[in-house]
Amino acid sequence: MMVHKWVITRISDSSSSLPQYPITKKAAIHFAPPPPSKKGSKMAGSIDVMLRELNLETVESLPEDFDPTTVISDPLPAVADDCCGVKGEKLVNGKEKPREIVLGRNVHTSCLEVTEPDDDDEVTGDREAQMASVLARYRKSLLERTKHHLGYPYNLDFDYGALSQLQHFSINNLGDPFIESNYGVHSRQFEVGVLDWFARLWELEKNEYWGYITNCGTEGNLHGILVGREVFPDGILYASCESHYSVFKAARMYRMDCEKVNTLISGEIDCEDFRAKLALHKDKPAIINVNIGTTVKGAVDDLDLVIKTLEETGFTHDRFYIHCDGALFGLMMPFVKLAPKVSFKKPIGSVSVSGHKFVGCPMPCGVQITRLQHINALSRNVEYLASRDATIMGSRNGHAPLFLWYTLNRKGYRGFQKEVQKCLRNAHYLRGRLASSGVGAMLNELSSTVVFERPQDEEFTRKWQLACQGNIAHVVVMPNITIDKLDDFVNELVEKRAIWYENGRLKSPCVASEIGEANCLCVLHK
Amino acid sequence: MMVHKWVITRISDSSSSLPQYPITKKAAIHFAPPPPSKKGSKMAGSIDVMLRELNLETVESLPEDFDPTTVISDPLPAVADDCCGVKGEKLVNGKEKPREIVLGRNVHTSCLEVTEPDDDDEVTGDREAQMASVLARYRKSLLERTKHHLGYPYNLDFDYGALSQLQHFSINNLGDPFIESNYGVHSRQFEVGVLDWFARLWELEKNEYWGYITNCGTEGNLHGILVGREVFPDGILYASCESHYSVFKAARMYRMDCEKVNTLISGEIDCEDFRAKLALHKDKPAIINVNIGTTVKGAVDDLDLVIKTLEETGFTHDRFYIHCDGALFGLMMPFVKLAPKVSFKKPIGSVSVSGHKFVGCPMPCGVQITRLQHINALSRNVEYLASRDATIMGSRNGHAPLFLWYTLNRKGYRGFQKEVQKCLRNAHYLRGRLASSGVGAMLNELSSTVVFERPQDEEFTRKWQLACQGNIAHVVVMPNITIDKLDDFVNELVEKRAIWYENGRLKSPCVASEIGEANCLCVLHK
Repeated sequence: MMVHKWVITRISDSSSSLPQYPITKKAAIHFAPPPPSKKGSKMAGSIDVMLRELNLETVESLPEDFDPTTVISDPLPAVADDCCGVKGEKLVNGKEKPREIVLGRNVHTSCLEVTEPDDDDEVTGDREAQMASVLARYRKSLLERTKHHLGYPYNLDFDYGALSQLQHFSINNLGDPFIESNYGVHSRQFEVGVLDWFARLWELEKNEYWGYITNCGTEGNLHGILVGREVFPDGILYASCESHYSVFKAARMYRMDCEKVNTLISGEIDCEDFRAKLALHKDKPAIINVNIGTTVKGAVDDLDLVIKTLEETGFTHDRFYIHCDGALFGLMMPFVKLAPKVSFKKPIGSVSVSGHKFVGCPMPCGVQITRLQHINALSRNVEYLASRDATIMGSRNGHAPLFLWYTLNRKGYRGFQKEVQKCLRNAHYLRGRLASSGVGAMLNELSSTVVFERPQDEEFTRKWQLACQGNIAHVVVMPNITIDKLDDFVNELVEKRAIWYENGRLKSPCVASEIGEANCLCVLHK
Repeated sequence: MMVHKWVITRISDSSSSLPQYPITKKAAIHFAPPPPSKKGSKMAGSIDVMLRELNLETVESLPEDFDPTTVISDPLPAVADDCCGVKGEKLVNGKEKPREIVLGRNVHTSCLEVTEPDDDDEVTGDREAQMASVLARYRKSLLERTKHHLGYPYNLDFDYGALSQLQHFSINNLGDPFIESNYGVHSRQFEVGVLDWFARLWELEKNEYWGYITNCGTEGNLHGILVGREVFPDGILYASCESHYSVFKAARMYRMDCEKVNTLISGEIDCEDFRAKLALHKDKPAIINVNIGTTVKGAVDDLDLVIKTLEETGFTHDRFYIHCDGALFGLMMPFVKLAPKVSFKKPIGSVSVSGHKFVGCPMPCGVQITRLQHINALSRNVEYLASRDATIMGSRNGHAPLFLWYTLNRKGYRGFQKEVQKCLRNAHYLRGRLASSGVGAMLNELSSTVVFERPQDEEFTRKWQLACQGNIAHVVVMPNITIDKLDDFVNELVEKRAIWYENGRLKSPCVASEIGEANCLCVLHK
């Protein structure tokens, strides 16, 4: 049995005053209900409204329970290439700081222990009061964190007050969306409405598609790649090295052979390398993950060129399966003029998109659409297990379809189009402001992800919740990110850089290898 | 490429007046907010309170949008052994009805289409009113469905009003629960509090466990079995044939060899057959799924006997991995005197339990606990992908930990103990009432699942949302199921049986092969 001490590296230079929510027994704290919303609905309005009401717009300092040890960016954490020992990371200015984390330890210092109620708690109401106090403080910290968030592609601006009346129900769409179970408390009629909308967006007829609402982007990728594998059991998985980590996780879980394909500096798949890798395995069918927006650089793989490369290498349409990972841009691209179209009129097998990203949703979710003929093949293969089991998960969150249905109905195509235009415009604004401030930055066409040098100060990174990888960080401009917020961010970054680089006496790092010479503004390249 | 028409069988004898929510444009419907709760909190109280307020307790008829085509039970749907054609199912009294469903078709007739807003919708407010009307009707149908639900192991009695203030936030615990990402809007401090509680329940020290809150029982099984496979890459998976379908799905997804083991009449694993199957593969390590409550019969596999069988067949502790699927009873058993203990003091590798079942939660979720040493092995294996990627999903619902934390704190061990006792008592009551009414029924010791003959009338099955498999149906007695509700159910069943079996002139079916001769009350066995 392998027993291996697993250590990953991270900066940990503070003695970490982690969030504290002391649950003092018998403390006489009473629950302060949230302030009423301006709109007068039962469930108060959007985050912005709440912020205004709490006068939090002017609050500058981090809340006391903000965790100062959050350092590792999530979408693509650094690989632990030295898995047993402690690794030092060289920072700018030659300073080296030790990084160490033992998996499964560090959050314990901050966790909110579950405690056994006292016998008289029901009488005194003390426990209710304590819990209300914890929740009120937690809510305040969420407001602060939501306000400063820039790094992850989540639209934090939503108002689902009208749906709060449904929170009492255990809504479960267990199994297939198109076949009802005997469990009556479900939301399939909403789920299928949402799926129809997406199938239409990606140009697949109602009677030719199958799909479901997933728990997250990863589930969409796991499903798409599994369908590909069931269609081609001996297929080889091809994915660019900047694909989401769930793609490689799928390869390992499913015991598939996988070829990592190089990327261009933009982050797009390098189709020359793809061609060469395909040539190595001409005898085996190809299963390809195409990124409609990579995690870090927001790069969109050229779907048409991928298909052309396959055809030119001798792969006929019955010998490949393309899964499009459209986590974020899968929903933005259709609203961008001139963007290459993701469409089932092309020889693709499945498309997935996240619901909590551009749409915005309290909990992660996603949409997975595939061809009915493929899911029939999948179901055929698993039928000896349980005939209709075509989803990855069994019980499925019935609230997520309601959130998506509600937003799609309220905004419609036109609403999304406006929001996409706003995001792209604001992303261009951010890139421009960074460049004019001497910060090298890259913004791919069709993308709202602005990539730039990683800030030297981890506290700054944490405050703005930037996602980082190696020497770069990014901001994903979502509908809730305003020009004002971007200005605040750039102004603070400029101030901080003056300190980090001692008003230009020290060199800022070169990021040409990450974002290209044309975008880099280091001493060598500006 | 396999293109296969996938057909499963089902009774479909009505021309199916499916739920209709016509979204009439410009209809002058105004939003009726839910009535205020007695408790005066912003988010009204429990389902029962709402039912009283709506005077729905006395409503007998099904809501007009109740779907009369829901026929197939979900936990273990019948296998489609004739996957291309239409199969007839022989019902009692010699009547035969055709069954047919084409996957991906039938819900479309009832779905709530997403429609594009008109330009003037914002001005007129018509769209908001239409949507509010749809939601109000949907809420009413959920109340009705919740009231009559008996068949699935979901505790529908919860009041999370205090948490409604958090619904505005996009809470995401992406990645590992113990390592924070830079995304600040998370609930890891609550998640780890919940995990600690479960680790203590199953007797594993804080510094020796790893775990996370999953999306459902299936994710727990997928994770437990994946950990087992990573620890023993060439291990054989053993699971009783009454295991949840996700176990066999895992085997297929992970390309593992799988041995199905026979069961006793109770539904427990047959350890004599297990011994024989183990003897066939003595050269390979064993990965065993142990059911702490099977889906259909609520049978608890004898963990101690499974371990003894392994030991006696020559499998030392470093050559097997046991995953305990405790979907429902994993949380009930610890509170039952004399029940065999699920404990990490025994040589087990992981335990999973569902959160939306006994605890009760608006959306499906689960808890997965494993040994830190195993997850280290797993992470070691996948580290070249993304160092800390040890969960199946990537983005993870941050609301589920809040719901679980809240309930655990409010109820505590003592609260759960009381509820478990009540459920077991009420299950015995139900079994007794069925038997005295001439309905053969089985109730396993340690279980609150009462198994009995499948009702002959699908409308009755749908009304009470019974889960069925073959000739049997079951009721899972959960905390929200009262004696009154059970009485109503039995009284109606007795009335209906008088009609189905023409006051005893026709024979009721023999279910001895499903529930044992001792429990069957057919003409032969009573």
